[in-house]
Amino acid sequence: MTETGAGDAARRANVVGLGLIGGSVGLGLRARGWHVTGDDAARDRAERAASLGVVDEIGLDPTAEVSFVAVPALTAAEVASDVLARTSGLVTDVASVKGPICREIDDPRFLGGHPMAGSELHGLDGADADMFAGAVWVLTPTATTPDHVFAAVGAIVRTLGAELVALPPERHDEIVAVVSHVPHLVAASMMVLADDRASDHAALMRLAAGGFRDMTRVAAGHPDIWLDICAQNQRAITEVLSGLLDALGDVKQAVGADDRDGLIELLNRARAARTNLPRGAGRPETMVEMRVPVADRPGVAAEVFTLAAELGVNVYDFEVYHSAEGSSGVLIAVVEAASADLFRGGLIARGFRPSVRSLE
Amino acid sequence: MTETGAGDAARRANVVGLGLIGGSVGLGLRARGWHVTGDDAARDRAERAASLGVVDEIGLDPTAEVSFVAVPALTAAEVASDVLARTSGLVTDVASVKGPICREIDDPRFLGGHPMAGSELHGLDGADADMFAGAVWVLTPTATTPDHVFAAVGAIVRTLGAELVALPPERHDEIVAVVSHVPHLVAASMMVLADDRASDHAALMRLAAGGFRDMTRVAAGHPDIWLDICAQNQRAITEVLSGLLDALGDVKQAVGADDRDGLIELLNRARAARTNLPRGAGRPETMVEMRVPVADRPGVAAEVFTLAAELGVNVYDFEVYHSAEGSSGVLIAVVEAASADLFRGGLIARGFRPSVRSLE
Repeated sequence: MTETGAGDAARRANVVGLGLIGGSVGLGLRARGWHVTGDDAARDRAERAASLGVVDEIGLDPTAEVSFVAVPALTAAEVASDVLARTSGLVTDVASVKGPICREIDDPRFLGGHPMAGSELHGLDGADADMFAGAVWVLTPTATTPDHVFAAVGAIVRTLGAELVALPPERHDEIVAVVSHVPHLVAASMMVLADDRASDHAALMRLAAGGFRDMTRVAAGHPDIWLDICAQNQRAITEVLSGLLDALGDVKQAVGADDRDGLIELLNRARAARTNLPRGAGRPETMVEMRVPVADRPGVAAEVFTLAAELGVNVYDFEVYHSAEGSSGVLIAVVEAASADLFRGGLIARGFRPSVRSLE
Repeated sequence: MTETGAGDAARRANVVGLGLIGGSVGLGLRARGWHVTGDDAARDRAERAASLGVVDEIGLDPTAEVSFVAVPALTAAEVASDVLARTSGLVTDVASVKGPICREIDDPRFLGGHPMAGSELHGLDGADADMFAGAVWVLTPTATTPDHVFAAVGAIVRTLGAELVALPPERHDEIVAVVSHVPHLVAASMMVLADDRASDHAALMRLAAGGFRDMTRVAAGHPDIWLDICAQNQRAITEVLSGLLDALGDVKQAVGADDRDGLIELLNRARAARTNLPRGAGRPETMVEMRVPVADRPGVAAEVFTLAAELGVNVYDFEVYHSAEGSSGVLIAVVEAASADLFRGGLIARGFRPSVRSLE
């Protein structure tokens, strides 16, 4: 699955930054037989991680096949550059904004990532070997990401149980502005608005029932990380906020004018879209293997996975074989049988020549 | 407690409108020994309620000591007036906007009410004798409401297990605009905004993790009731929407200008206010939050609660969050600080990895 396997010896990884996410990566890899070297800017936290069995040893292994950089977003690019300079393996990160770091680091051994898990817990104590089981882990390859780098990091992420989604860095940032960053700012604004109007605070707060609690739950999160997110994803966040301001202005107009048709259209559309939010699903019963001959050029595997993400096709397993000469290869993706035709159509439209094989 | 008690005979009530709320009132009163007469504009629903034991008989008892009007908001005033004319007892309603009905009905036997429960379920099938246990039930007396009417209705509501909150009708409407009506419209707007931007819809929706799911959950509700609410509470809703538009405009400005001080002030205020949201009454002074990562399998919450019961640990509040893909989550239980260690020990012995956080 990876081209940098270590034979009988344990595979080796670094984890730099041992908070909730880094700690969970360390536990997850160790639970799967890896040797994990890790460190943290806070020495006592690194020691605690070692004593808790989150890492095998403290430090940075220069020959580890992969290094996970799991430090706060604002320092991620600097730390990742340093790790690239001090190690010979691949490097990936977990920052929740991907454009800046992917623009800043121009090294074929680096691939940006964002595991979408763990936001409700904080710190090493919340670390869990199975935190990523069933969670979406976005990888953000660029046009210059070599196939084998994407394939290797993707395979490692998948061994942690995550579902892989590939997106260009900028598209990732636009999407998380819509589904995470702006909702967080809206929740905070609504909470403060409620607080401002609470001249009889206790009564208001007692009436804040389930829906309000649900909507404002994220506002209880730690503020610091959101400042960095706002700074790093400024353009997408302000753009989505503009869209929301327009939409809420329309709603206010419709309520004020008693425009029932306008309101019912909004509410029905919202209901349909909410109902269609995908729920987590186990691995389907019927799977097929999609074999895609690929040229040996950078980014071809990432292109196939980005297409899968666009089409909503879940890739459950994949491998890339290269020919001995290295000029061509075949990418094998395992997908649900029900989505095989959709995926095949998209691949053909992009100039690939896939074949489908049943796995039964 | 009431001045119209019936001695040894069962106390008698009417329930007019046998949906979720009316059905729950009927079941709740019958479970407490009342004789309940009920009816519904839909004859088959009334018959179903009788066969399910939600009411003792179909009709309107002219001498019932209290009548609950549980019909849609737009017809509540008309139905309540009719019930006042045809009965000699007290009349209350359950509409979620209180100004219009309380202005329209000028009768000392009428007292407006709003049980804040049940929004996630619909229809008679969701009816539950204990639906109001621990829920807030707002009563909205006016300057002309006689004390004994307020006391009598309040006592009956409390026998259903509800926590009584009294507010003037207009103040009730302002508060629910803040904590319920506008949040609902915002959730719908955000859901539609996300849907509009989903040129690669599937990818966006797969990235819509816990926070977004929480925030937009209410958008899955039935639209019809919200049209009536928007019409009836127009003034308060547009006023709160104006406030939210101003607030979000400020946020957009702060993000665009990288105004970290402004953003941290907003986020810190929101966090403090959210943390102060009360979680039900009768609780001890010092509480802690126990956060338990759990696998998404049936019965895991029951296992945690059974353990709490075995250990004699009283769980004052709990919520279960699931990860985006639903394969894991975290159960949050609020317990008295004094029993935190006991509970934690039991959880660890069962293989859980709880963390404890102070609520102060």
